[in-house]
Amino acid sequence: MLSNNDEQELPAQTRAEGDRPLGRALTSVIAAGKEILAKRRPFAAAPRGSTEALVELCHAIIHHRGEASGLALAQEITAAYRDLTEPAQLEFFKRLAADFDIDREALRAAAQDYAEQPDYQHLLNISHAVEAPRLKLFRRINTALDGTRTLVAMRGDLLRVLRANPELKAVDADLKHLFISWFNKGFLELRSIDWSSPAVVLEKLIAYEAVHEINGWDDLRGRLREDRRCFAFFHPAMGNDPLVFVEVALTDSVPNAIAPLLARGRETVAAEQVNTVVFYSISNCHPGLAGISFGNFLIKSVVEHLNKEMDGLKTFVTLSPVPGFRRWLATADLQGLVDEDLYDKVRQPIGRVVESVVQAALVKLCAHYLLNVKSGELAKDPVARFHLGNGARLHGLHWGADTTPNGREQSGSIMVNYLYDLRKIEINHEEYFNEGLISASRSVRRLLD
Amino acid sequence: MLSNNDEQELPAQTRAEGDRPLGRALTSVIAAGKEILAKRRPFAAAPRGSTEALVELCHAIIHHRGEASGLALAQEITAAYRDLTEPAQLEFFKRLAADFDIDREALRAAAQDYAEQPDYQHLLNISHAVEAPRLKLFRRINTALDGTRTLVAMRGDLLRVLRANPELKAVDADLKHLFISWFNKGFLELRSIDWSSPAVVLEKLIAYEAVHEINGWDDLRGRLREDRRCFAFFHPAMGNDPLVFVEVALTDSVPNAIAPLLARGRETVAAEQVNTVVFYSISNCHPGLAGISFGNFLIKSVVEHLNKEMDGLKTFVTLSPVPGFRRWLATADLQGLVDEDLYDKVRQPIGRVVESVVQAALVKLCAHYLLNVKSGELAKDPVARFHLGNGARLHGLHWGADTTPNGREQSGSIMVNYLYDLRKIEINHEEYFNEGLISASRSVRRLLD
Amino acid sequence: MLSNNDEQELPAQTRAEGDRPLGRALTSVIAAGKEILAKRRPFAAAPRGSTEALVELCHAIIHHRGEASGLALAQEITAAYRDLTEPAQLEFFKRLAADFDIDREALRAAAQDYAEQPDYQHLLNISHAVEAPRLKLFRRINTALDGTRTLVAMRGDLLRVLRANPELKAVDADLKHLFISWFNKGFLELRSIDWSSPAVVLEKLIAYEAVHEINGWDDLRGRLREDRRCFAFFHPAMGNDPLVFVEVALTDSVPNAIAPLLARGRETVAAEQVNTVVFYSISNCHPGLAGISFGNFLIKSVVEHLNKEMDGLKTFVTLSPVPGFRRWLATADLQGLVDEDLYDKVRQPIGRVVESVVQAALVKLCAHYLLNVKSGELAKDPVARFHLGNGARLHGLHWGADTTPNGREQSGSIMVNYLYDLRKIEINHEEYFNEGLISASRSVRRLLD
Amino acid sequence: MLSNNDEQELPAQTRAEGDRPLGRALTSVIAAGKEILAKRRPFAAAPRGSTEALVELCHAIIHHRGEASGLALAQEITAAYRDLTEPAQLEFFKRLAADFDIDREALRAAAQDYAEQPDYQHLLNISHAVEAPRLKLFRRINTALDGTRTLVAMRGDLLRVLRANPELKAVDADLKHLFISWFNKGFLELRSIDWSSPAVVLEKLIAYEAVHEINGWDDLRGRLREDRRCFAFFHPAMGNDPLVFVEVALTDSVPNAIAPLLARGRETVAAEQVNTVVFYSISNCHPGLAGISFGNFLIKSVVEHLNKEMDGLKTFVTLSPVPGFRRWLATADLQGLVDEDLYDKVRQPIGRVVESVVQAALVKLCAHYLLNVKSGELAKDPVARFHLGNGARLHGLHWGADTTPNGREQSGSIMVNYLYDLRKIEINHEEYFNEGLISASRSVRRLLD
Repeated sequence: MLSNNDEQELPAQTRAEGDRPLGRALTSVIAAGKEILAKRRPFAAAPRGSTEALVELCHAIIHHRGEASGLALAQEITAAYRDLTEPAQLEFFKRLAADFDIDREALRAAAQDYAEQPDYQHLLNISHAVEAPRLKLFRRINTALDGTRTLVAMRGDLLRVLRANPELKAVDADLKHLFISWFNKGFLELRSIDWSSPAVVLEKLIAYEAVHEINGWDDLRGRLREDRRCFAFFHPAMGNDPLVFVEVALTDSVPNAIAPLLARGRETVAAEQVNTVVFYSISNCHPGLAGISFGNFLIKSVVEHLNKEMDGLKTFVTLSPVPGFRRWLATADLQGLVDEDLYDKVRQPIGRVVESVVQAALVKLCAHYLLNVKSGELAKDPVARFHLGNGARLHGLHWGADTTPNGREQSGSIMVNYLYDLRKIEINHEEYFNEGLISASRSVRRLLD
Repeated sequence: MLSNNDEQELPAQTRAEGDRPLGRALTSVIAAGKEILAKRRPFAAAPRGSTEALVELCHAIIHHRGEASGLALAQEITAAYRDLTEPAQLEFFKRLAADFDIDREALRAAAQDYAEQPDYQHLLNISHAVEAPRLKLFRRINTALDGTRTLVAMRGDLLRVLRANPELKAVDADLKHLFISWFNKGFLELRSIDWSSPAVVLEKLIAYEAVHEINGWDDLRGRLREDRRCFAFFHPAMGNDPLVFVEVALTDSVPNAIAPLLARGRETVAAEQVNTVVFYSISNCHPGLAGISFGNFLIKSVVEHLNKEMDGLKTFVTLSPVPGFRRWLATADLQGLVDEDLYDKVRQPIGRVVESVVQAALVKLCAHYLLNVKSGELAKDPVARFHLGNGARLHGLHWGADTTPNGREQSGSIMVNYLYDLRKIEINHEEYFNEGLISASRSVRRLLD
Repeated sequence: MLSNNDEQELPAQTRAEGDRPLGRALTSVIAAGKEILAKRRPFAAAPRGSTEALVELCHAIIHHRGEASGLALAQEITAAYRDLTEPAQLEFFKRLAADFDIDREALRAAAQDYAEQPDYQHLLNISHAVEAPRLKLFRRINTALDGTRTLVAMRGDLLRVLRANPELKAVDADLKHLFISWFNKGFLELRSIDWSSPAVVLEKLIAYEAVHEINGWDDLRGRLREDRRCFAFFHPAMGNDPLVFVEVALTDSVPNAIAPLLARGRETVAAEQVNTVVFYSISNCHPGLAGISFGNFLIKSVVEHLNKEMDGLKTFVTLSPVPGFRRWLATADLQGLVDEDLYDKVRQPIGRVVESVVQAALVKLCAHYLLNVKSGELAKDPVARFHLGNGARLHGLHWGADTTPNGREQSGSIMVNYLYDLRKIEINHEEYFNEGLISASRSVRRLLD
Repeated sequence: MLSNNDEQELPAQTRAEGDRPLGRALTSVIAAGKEILAKRRPFAAAPRGSTEALVELCHAIIHHRGEASGLALAQEITAAYRDLTEPAQLEFFKRLAADFDIDREALRAAAQDYAEQPDYQHLLNISHAVEAPRLKLFRRINTALDGTRTLVAMRGDLLRVLRANPELKAVDADLKHLFISWFNKGFLELRSIDWSSPAVVLEKLIAYEAVHEINGWDDLRGRLREDRRCFAFFHPAMGNDPLVFVEVALTDSVPNAIAPLLARGRETVAAEQVNTVVFYSISNCHPGLAGISFGNFLIKSVVEHLNKEMDGLKTFVTLSPVPGFRRWLATADLQGLVDEDLYDKVRQPIGRVVESVVQAALVKLCAHYLLNVKSGELAKDPVARFHLGNGARLHGLHWGADTTPNGREQSGSIMVNYLYDLRKIEINHEEYFNEGLISASRSVRRLLD
């Protein structure tokens, strides 16, 4: 792309207060900017706090030149956005879609010109015309001290209303385009989290854990005992707020149920007997970063890290739910899979006691679901899609592995192990994407015989 | 922009070895990738080490899918580039310009389509077509462990041959476009450098100091004594290699000559008497980052930082050369500026002794040069252009301030102070850019009366 | 003292696991030592886990020469001590007092010799004889990884039974002698504690807070909000376990009650209006370090630290209880202090409502208690003794300042401010110790008129 | 010992400026102390800068009570000591020996009393009387910011004149007694030093390297390349000034000459082929810490550390000189060791070329010197005494291993390997000390056949 980019015009704040000794950046420059703004600004037409006032600020910052006052404007915008009610947010998104879109007419003209005479200047014109003014707006908002955090929160808000408002798709695409560049893997910092980590980080784990809820500080402490590890990716613009974290158990065998792993009073495996690393929970922390996936890279980085730190590790597996299984089962065509007289029984809610014949049928159906049921070319189950796409192998399938209400309701109490073998993941990954092949252990395949 | 971006496909190495305890990242993934490549790769047509072989690798990585082998390929490319001779580099740049350019015909067709029917799909097509395959190539090279460093070095090499090979301009534009995003100010880390900094950082100062050469470690130590400070910006992808640094003297008055500041045996000003901060040298470290300016932000960040750290600071000034003065003087029309009989004398090399009338004339001419001589709308002198563009004020002008051969040759021994007053820089900046006004002290203006 | 000291013979473990990257020290040396011990050791006479077995180990380590096995022995001793029941501890202390005491006969003989011929060799002999073998024992125990912690815990256990067993006094004196040297102020590290401190440190605050109880993590977070500070001293041999900590409130006036300071929903004072630092709670963490006072040094260090960090601080005060007041009042001779008809009333439990005449009488009595009631030459009240001994001034006295059951029961709801003025503390300190003068504000003195 | 200890009275400065963020401690307390001193102090009798003036300060601090002024006094003493000329130092040491010694008469009386009535109070009296007032003086000097450093330097100065002034022995003994406690191994911090270490540390290596001189920064860099390691012990009271450091080469075989190890252009051994760790230089940094040995502990800590860090290490050896060999040879009785006609030849200076028969004789004599020549019960050679005392084994002996002038002059060009096998060092150590047995490899023993 030819360089029609203005990201450089306004200096970004280095980072959140307190993160770095020298990094508190330009607070007095901003203070000077506020004074200048206060002097110059004509009486705003729109009432303070309204969407209209925010839109005015957005127009102002796009056409602004001064550095200090530009920073001050960016700060005002992030503050104003945070004060919007949900309806006002939606109104604001619509204005972003309509008022800050590309000028289709100008692009059409540039396209026409280029089509007639495909030279360098016409190419440049197209490059300019194809970029919506929103992008410049977002880049400038990003110069505020909390700019990145605000934009990530903004996309989180946007995604909640996107399905109902498809005209906002281009706004989402622009934000995502920027995030892909800003959240480049090169900037991620892998940190090991344990009981000596800052409380300000630990409280985030409690808040964000999505898979197996953490009930307060005592529970958290149990999750961070000597047979456990936790790793997260952090990003300079997000300070102590992790992007994604994974919880790990160190064991002496591949686990077939979740409860023993979570039990607070559990016995820990002696360090010299540890040979298995279990990824039993992986949580994304920011809805606004949807589609910018860090989990794959996190798991592989942790495998590398632990292999360097400890001797004797042989097996890296997950213990994962099959969250789409019973939803699929409810309406699936079961013909040829199980006896007809079981059709109803396998669709019953999973109680504490399940007939062994039903149990066997459910296990078989789940194997079928994971190995054969696709959405497009890829596995239908979202967790399977994630791990198989990463190049993992479907390694084991366990009945009664998660007997919580949620575990029974979604996965029929079944959990599975996905195996990460660094030497195989690329081949698995390629066969999966190119040929639709799912790597699975013999024991899993045998369930379908 | 619509999201046709692939930066996310390959995971970047986190950072240089040793920089972060957990960050050594995917070394065994890469090892697995190398094995895969070794098995699969057909016999390369081009001899190893040739430009042709590198170009082949570049084609391969653009069309590659596997993660591990992709990383291995990126590593091979950075190694191969570093081994090129200068002629081979030029050949490689020409191939980047020719073989990895946008497909003008495809763009023309897309432009035509859009001109006829300006809908979303046609917009997307244009977006794709307007981006050269080089960009994808560079993004993928950037996933290598030393990817960013290699690309920065590559652009440095490119800039040396650009004037003679204008057809490479688009290659430069693409690299610069990426660097502007990657070297976003939000990622810069301000660090204070002193004698307790790592030797690996300090040796960089010796290597990079561009203004007043540092002669080895003892000289460096003198520059880092208690009345001195040094600050630099670092970037996560560049490890301990600074981007730009500034050397600072703490004094009790605005200095009018450089030698006393650099003298090793100088007396230091007592901490409680320091009221003036002198920026006496600012050095960019990487030619490949030309045009991505950090100096302005560095100076302002240091002003902020020192204001927070120390009480009693009143004045922030530079002590700067006027490097374009005598080059301009050589051919300038001096009519109306000085007496005709001085025309020759002011153009003589500056000796140890200069007649006082000539001295006065040179000072006046220099003030004229700085205040009135423009290149376009902006100051002609490059150092003046930098500081005035930052919003600084021309504060003082000193004869005999730099009596080194270089100082006499370029600046006629004159040095000037540019004053940074955070409350005034935005107004100065705007008046300078909007109205061409140069902020200058009365004492400097008076030189022209 | 002539050097008859063996502290150097056994290498101490550097520090607790994880505290320092390189500091895990001699684990394989110790492992080798264990093997050697296992081979050599004759069958122990005493049953494992008994006091007798521990005493045997103590004898063994005193006469031991090998380094590796010596370290292994030290480790065994700390483990064995931790397993003792309370009665077994007492028995062990008695054995320390009896079996590891100085040899009085040898000392008598050395004394006799020296008295007859006071030369260097006889002096040396006395020096040796005057030191109990216990000291050597404790120094060698201190080489274990958790040696210092164990010995500190041991003295804590000892102090609980000391009053009832005065024959243990010499054991306590020896431990204290060593601690005074080991816990030298030069080794203390002042750390600021806040919500970004490690959880492993924060949980200690919850556990140790002695003055105003912290109820769990949410309460702790309230204590660490932006208008609060917490500082602690740490010591290298105690890892993340603080020795003493002080809780600080930043306010805009001298407080006269504790509840508003502790209220979770309180309004915080804007940073630019803070002028007063309130030390409202100071807690020693280890009973075993009784008599080795860090509090004085901590308060002064915090005053220094905050003065450097913040501008505009004018006043450093405590908000302190008067814990001995009502105990004294119960039996004091009140003649001449208050009207006779109030004698009974002022001794009643303090209810929610108190007659104003009684209230006035209590305030007056408390001022009298603090200013005039001595134990020896020094203030009778323990908190007053601490702060006045530090050189603080009795600054204010507030009725109804602590209405918790404990506050009413001990201090009659009264709290006082002690003022720390760094320029006055030495003079106050000297006048207090040399002349028994108590520095007090006019407003406090006036209460006695 | 009964607790007659005053180390606690004055607070020590925490540490050197800049070492710790919070540790600058009581500077304004000290400033207040200076004011108080200035007001109170009578005109000093002795001229400022004289030994007499320093002695006066020493008397003053011993009898001083105020904390702030006490700290100020300690600071004055350290400054005054540093200003003394060498003759004045000697005078000062003599005053320490004479004026601050124990009161022999008082001790005699206490001894007499105790001999007559050996009770607790008389014991206490003896304890007090046996301690020289110097100890209190040194402890109080130690509260100054640079107190520990000054006392270490003082002992260094003292040791230089001790032999000629044996009456100073007791002063030395008192300092050593304190240092043994203050430089307790528990406070040592092992740090790995490399090219990313602070320059302020690296310059110390250049200054202190005692065995194989480092010629400036470039040479140092060669010593810190990827096949080298350097480790040092640091102590909190000494800041960035190491106590002892060891230089290590990573190789694939036991080296038999020093030059290849030091060569700047050497080829490095690939990481996966490293199996041998060579300690080729160990340097104590402070003469004032003589007799407080850290080297043994350093070597063992490094063995442990490297074993944890790297796989595949098999052998830990030194490459050491035999510095006493030729001094011994000059006057030794060679009868029965070598042929009589070689007596003169083996005592000749070692030239570039040496007859093979002489060479063989020298090697044999050196083996004899190391294995059989004792000073008391221990090896005569100082380096052998150190390593054999640590439990190392004499592993190899190499002719022509050090051909520098110094190497030929002292060691006859011979160097030896001492082998550190953690499983054997205790047994070797005990056999050496208890039975005088020297552990040696068969190849070394065979030299004597």
